[in-house]
Amino acid sequence: MTELNVALLGYKFMGKAHSNAYRQVGRFFPGKYQVRMKVICGRDAKAAAVAARQFGWEEVETDWRKVVRRKDIDVVDVSTPGNLHHAMAIAAASNGKHIICEKPLGNSLAEAKEMLQAVEKAGVKHMLMHNYRKIPAVAFARKLMQAGRLGRIYHYHGAYLQDWILDPKFPLVWRLDKKVAGSGALGDIGSHAADLAQFLNGDIESVTAQMTTFIKERPLPDTVEGAWGARGKKGKGRVTVDDDTNFLARFKNGSVGVFESSRFCGGRRNFNTFQIYGSKGSLAFNLERMNELELYEGADPPGEQGYKTINVTETVHPYAGAWWPPGHIIGYEHTFVHAIHDFLVALEKDRLPEPNFYDGVKIQAVLDAVERSARAGKWEQVKNQ
Amino acid sequence: MTELNVALLGYKFMGKAHSNAYRQVGRFFPGKYQVRMKVICGRDAKAAAVAARQFGWEEVETDWRKVVRRKDIDVVDVSTPGNLHHAMAIAAASNGKHIICEKPLGNSLAEAKEMLQAVEKAGVKHMLMHNYRKIPAVAFARKLMQAGRLGRIYHYHGAYLQDWILDPKFPLVWRLDKKVAGSGALGDIGSHAADLAQFLNGDIESVTAQMTTFIKERPLPDTVEGAWGARGKKGKGRVTVDDDTNFLARFKNGSVGVFESSRFCGGRRNFNTFQIYGSKGSLAFNLERMNELELYEGADPPGEQGYKTINVTETVHPYAGAWWPPGHIIGYEHTFVHAIHDFLVALEKDRLPEPNFYDGVKIQAVLDAVERSARAGKWEQVKNQ
Amino acid sequence: MTELNVALLGYKFMGKAHSNAYRQVGRFFPGKYQVRMKVICGRDAKAAAVAARQFGWEEVETDWRKVVRRKDIDVVDVSTPGNLHHAMAIAAASNGKHIICEKPLGNSLAEAKEMLQAVEKAGVKHMLMHNYRKIPAVAFARKLMQAGRLGRIYHYHGAYLQDWILDPKFPLVWRLDKKVAGSGALGDIGSHAADLAQFLNGDIESVTAQMTTFIKERPLPDTVEGAWGARGKKGKGRVTVDDDTNFLARFKNGSVGVFESSRFCGGRRNFNTFQIYGSKGSLAFNLERMNELELYEGADPPGEQGYKTINVTETVHPYAGAWWPPGHIIGYEHTFVHAIHDFLVALEKDRLPEPNFYDGVKIQAVLDAVERSARAGKWEQVKNQ
Amino acid sequence: MTELNVALLGYKFMGKAHSNAYRQVGRFFPGKYQVRMKVICGRDAKAAAVAARQFGWEEVETDWRKVVRRKDIDVVDVSTPGNLHHAMAIAAASNGKHIICEKPLGNSLAEAKEMLQAVEKAGVKHMLMHNYRKIPAVAFARKLMQAGRLGRIYHYHGAYLQDWILDPKFPLVWRLDKKVAGSGALGDIGSHAADLAQFLNGDIESVTAQMTTFIKERPLPDTVEGAWGARGKKGKGRVTVDDDTNFLARFKNGSVGVFESSRFCGGRRNFNTFQIYGSKGSLAFNLERMNELELYEGADPPGEQGYKTINVTETVHPYAGAWWPPGHIIGYEHTFVHAIHDFLVALEKDRLPEPNFYDGVKIQAVLDAVERSARAGKWEQVKNQ
Repeated sequence: MTELNVALLGYKFMGKAHSNAYRQVGRFFPGKYQVRMKVICGRDAKAAAVAARQFGWEEVETDWRKVVRRKDIDVVDVSTPGNLHHAMAIAAASNGKHIICEKPLGNSLAEAKEMLQAVEKAGVKHMLMHNYRKIPAVAFARKLMQAGRLGRIYHYHGAYLQDWILDPKFPLVWRLDKKVAGSGALGDIGSHAADLAQFLNGDIESVTAQMTTFIKERPLPDTVEGAWGARGKKGKGRVTVDDDTNFLARFKNGSVGVFESSRFCGGRRNFNTFQIYGSKGSLAFNLERMNELELYEGADPPGEQGYKTINVTETVHPYAGAWWPPGHIIGYEHTFVHAIHDFLVALEKDRLPEPNFYDGVKIQAVLDAVERSARAGKWEQVKNQ
Repeated sequence: MTELNVALLGYKFMGKAHSNAYRQVGRFFPGKYQVRMKVICGRDAKAAAVAARQFGWEEVETDWRKVVRRKDIDVVDVSTPGNLHHAMAIAAASNGKHIICEKPLGNSLAEAKEMLQAVEKAGVKHMLMHNYRKIPAVAFARKLMQAGRLGRIYHYHGAYLQDWILDPKFPLVWRLDKKVAGSGALGDIGSHAADLAQFLNGDIESVTAQMTTFIKERPLPDTVEGAWGARGKKGKGRVTVDDDTNFLARFKNGSVGVFESSRFCGGRRNFNTFQIYGSKGSLAFNLERMNELELYEGADPPGEQGYKTINVTETVHPYAGAWWPPGHIIGYEHTFVHAIHDFLVALEKDRLPEPNFYDGVKIQAVLDAVERSARAGKWEQVKNQ
Repeated sequence: MTELNVALLGYKFMGKAHSNAYRQVGRFFPGKYQVRMKVICGRDAKAAAVAARQFGWEEVETDWRKVVRRKDIDVVDVSTPGNLHHAMAIAAASNGKHIICEKPLGNSLAEAKEMLQAVEKAGVKHMLMHNYRKIPAVAFARKLMQAGRLGRIYHYHGAYLQDWILDPKFPLVWRLDKKVAGSGALGDIGSHAADLAQFLNGDIESVTAQMTTFIKERPLPDTVEGAWGARGKKGKGRVTVDDDTNFLARFKNGSVGVFESSRFCGGRRNFNTFQIYGSKGSLAFNLERMNELELYEGADPPGEQGYKTINVTETVHPYAGAWWPPGHIIGYEHTFVHAIHDFLVALEKDRLPEPNFYDGVKIQAVLDAVERSARAGKWEQVKNQ
Repeated sequence: MTELNVALLGYKFMGKAHSNAYRQVGRFFPGKYQVRMKVICGRDAKAAAVAARQFGWEEVETDWRKVVRRKDIDVVDVSTPGNLHHAMAIAAASNGKHIICEKPLGNSLAEAKEMLQAVEKAGVKHMLMHNYRKIPAVAFARKLMQAGRLGRIYHYHGAYLQDWILDPKFPLVWRLDKKVAGSGALGDIGSHAADLAQFLNGDIESVTAQMTTFIKERPLPDTVEGAWGARGKKGKGRVTVDDDTNFLARFKNGSVGVFESSRFCGGRRNFNTFQIYGSKGSLAFNLERMNELELYEGADPPGEQGYKTINVTETVHPYAGAWWPPGHIIGYEHTFVHAIHDFLVALEKDRLPEPNFYDGVKIQAVLDAVERSARAGKWEQVKNQ
């Protein structure tokens, strides 16, 4: 067993989820590499220390530039808001660290491309944390599609809907600030929808989009509160990101795509869904019931066709066998454990983990085309080359 | 009780559904007017005679021009393919007949406007048969919205998906011929989605769209077969309509719309769905479970929020009380009975039934903008004035 | 085409449903026999006259004994409360009439047996109106089971739950009076559950049961109100039937049964459900979604097993092809149309319709054993011979 | 922070689940006590050593009698098959250890009572691991019921259905051997259904039951395989436990109960469900969708009543706030983390954790009455005093 020293930059929601993954991965997916949770880094020394103790990190740092230069660190995990990804990942790469980066890769297509160049140049391993690929039901959906079980794909619908800022009194947290977050619903959740689409159905070639901000001003937060990380001072401020972004797409394989992302859909707490329609079959998925996959097969006998609800918790399903017997469901944080497991296996086999910065550029290229289209009012090509 | 003599033009799928409605309406919704099923009209005398006997019509005609001139006819019901609506409705109007017209009103916006002018000029009553408005759950959804229960609307999703031409060997029936049908998925089912959207959420102002034909050629049908009305000769022919049409929309009230219509979605037999998200609540509906409506209310206490599945079969629900006790569901054809009931009540109260040719022009204006947008690759305004 | 003169005894809920079936059957299931709705009979001449006009009957009678003796009547339909079935059916049989009888056959096993003897002796056709057998999904379930698709049956669960008397202020209608209704939840809805069980899984051999009356007294109704037929005077009266009856059963084929029937299950408007588990597969059904059947097959590949939701509206499904294209659902009253259709076909082919009085005795024998078991506190044999 | 030394007896399925709980509890529910995973104990030294390393235990032992006598152990966790619970728990108690015991408490009511006497006499804390009480949705259901939200309870249905031994070739594992497991479906899963029922609806007073063994003989297992723990030699052996047990019940509060437990229900992987019907509302739960609770309220306005699906992942819900933001679901193993958290809090506050051996006796008394009833063929009283 080889120890692998990890440094985690960021300690909020994603920091908590990544920490759990590092702790748990060896317990359920033993392999060559044993993660050592070396150091966690945050600007607020006190809060970082609390996180370190709570999440199980050996040391605390407040200067990320120092961390990425440390000789004893093998892997740098970038789990900060999007505006810091670019600098952190490039610095980590130039110091020869393997990198795990939260999505979105950068806050712009240009940033993402530079980050990719940096890791290519440095020859390090890189992973983009699009954790929803690692859901057994999603990974199984891909297996079915790659085996041709759906035939030629005609129609893809991806919708990621939430409702956590539906209340106009919800404060102006960093995720509503374009300078920090890059974009709103689009980058935060639309990026997940786009990634799943490209993971399952291949590249998107062109899009037409609309981006909308329903609530233009919000109260400035005056306290750190809740899981979503509000902080700040009193008064009101301008929302500079989209509340709701939808787009139509054309895929390389000739199929059509319809995408919705919104934080204004009441009752949709974490409604990341897709339906995929092909010449031979269909699939449907909903993150709120993430242990289930619905499969329709046109080859079923007449009168016996219909959507089958598969409980994706069997040993034959991706990842599922490592956990509990069939029918015993897993939850949100398990997706990160799977991702870290995949990362470790990639290191062990000396190959690139998936998804990686190449995928990050592809997703960013879609988001970029969506933003251009929303401004121009017409179809735009995705520039992912 | 006053007798009302009806003539029905067309005797296929819609003819069967309308005939049932005329027979049943007085049994469950007794009123001033008693429908007399006077004459059914079809070009094929023998087939029309079979239909007359089967559906309960007194007489058979083969020449519709003669029918619309008959003195003893009060109401002309146009249930033929779309390319005949324009001529039939205008002729009926000019003969002073009240008109019930199957959707789409015409095969183009221009046709629809001329038809509207004709009925306005003639001063007759006119109804457009958008039967899905008459589903208790849909009519109840509208009541809730009009009472402000959803607050300000942010996001509307309408999808009408079917799969009946998914098989490339399915023949080139009239619904796949632009000259007869006007358009494909768009006019046939997208029009229903657009109508429900405007019924529930008000006028659509602009759209951006994509229209796709996946299977370009299909076998020419050589027999009359099935409910969908295939007929013709051997060989192959070109599909001249869209298989799949999607569009984004902007509503007059500031909300955004996302629309899907496709006949290529395996396992979706008659999947006419909407989800509506407002500041105070949300609604969700699926035609395949048409007796149910899902309601979410943001004002529910924290921890007790969620979608409630209402079985819309109570006496307090629109139309439902006329049928059976709560929990005893109704089906597809009941929507036509409700529509005819509404038509008779409008006649009795001397007001215009709903939806009518004004709505028909509005829907056609949306379809027109969708087609223009799909050609131009950019947003187009809906010209419904 | 041969005319068949029908007389209907009763004009309330079941009268309305049966009348609709007689009107509609020839429209969707044309056959040799054409029903003529000759006479409807009710003690209240005025109410019966209203029903006649509303439902489409030619004549009105108030004395059922006169009706069953009329020479011009071919079929007598007994749709009155249960306490009248015995006398009416026996009189009709002795006058050589074919009989359609609402369930339950009689108000006791002894009555049911005498009724069977009477029709056997008279040599007339007899049908028991257990309409839920005639749901396409249920008839299809039986086809699958008879084809051995579920293998050896292990476990059967049938629950028919409603909530219409949950309110203690709901009045003491005839269905809560043992003298008229025979029993409460057991005879009214438990009988449906038992009938479906024996239809699908064969005879029940023994049972252990509990019968409970939660609300012992209710207000006497002072008006005719609602679909459930309240009528009477002021004050309070004793509920003499069961509110809730459950039983365990052993089937002849070795499988076990668990049955629930209750009118006290809030939110279950008409929740008639079954789940059937066999060595090869499982089935699940819910009347509130009566167009759907869920099928599980153990032979599906590992990782692809699950319940498939079949929309039972295809032409290959029983009855469904006569109505509308796939995906266009039907409702409650269609089950009666199917039943009358089956009755007419049986007449045409000179065979006994199903279910008939033999089935009626079998169901009554189960109810009888349930009542004996509830009294004795131990298992009881079903005496259906 | 105070260290608490735990010894775990058993290292299979439950050992894995409990180990995870000890590792995770402090990460998500920090408190006074910090668990130290001191020693794991199993008869097979090698397998136990693997488990220790995998699950994170400091030491390995093969003699449980030695473990329970160790001075440095504060808590003994009994996670072995049921036949060992009695001896282990009594020995642990007599050595003054706090005890966490997997369900069922003992393999008979007599054993359970002796175990309770032992812990009472020793004055130690004791917990019974009925983990499903600790699901947020279940704990929330109880809160609603205790607040009177359902009113007077009328009808309770609990069904725990699985299908893992449906295949007659599935081997004769220890869970099918009465000497080791005590009983089959009844003790393994029926006990969960009974515990949830008593947790939510109070004591059961009497029952009538049937217990069935469908497959009387099975192959003797010749290898350790799968999560369910098969091991042994070649040939065939007799199944000595029930495959399927159902019972009717009468609760102390006057409500009726219907219970199903079976391992022969194809497609039900882990279908632990309840529906509870009261005068004011209803609840429904299904373990396969354990993050959801369905709530019906009779006080909702007419026409707006229905089952509401609550995603029980909000901070106001029991346990949920410690994990992830609303809508991010948790899984099976989290229930054990919650249980251990409750245990630690009880220690901290010096009160008895719940459920405990008193509950264990109560459950065992129900199982005992069920077995007696199944033998006697009549109703039996529950002897839980």
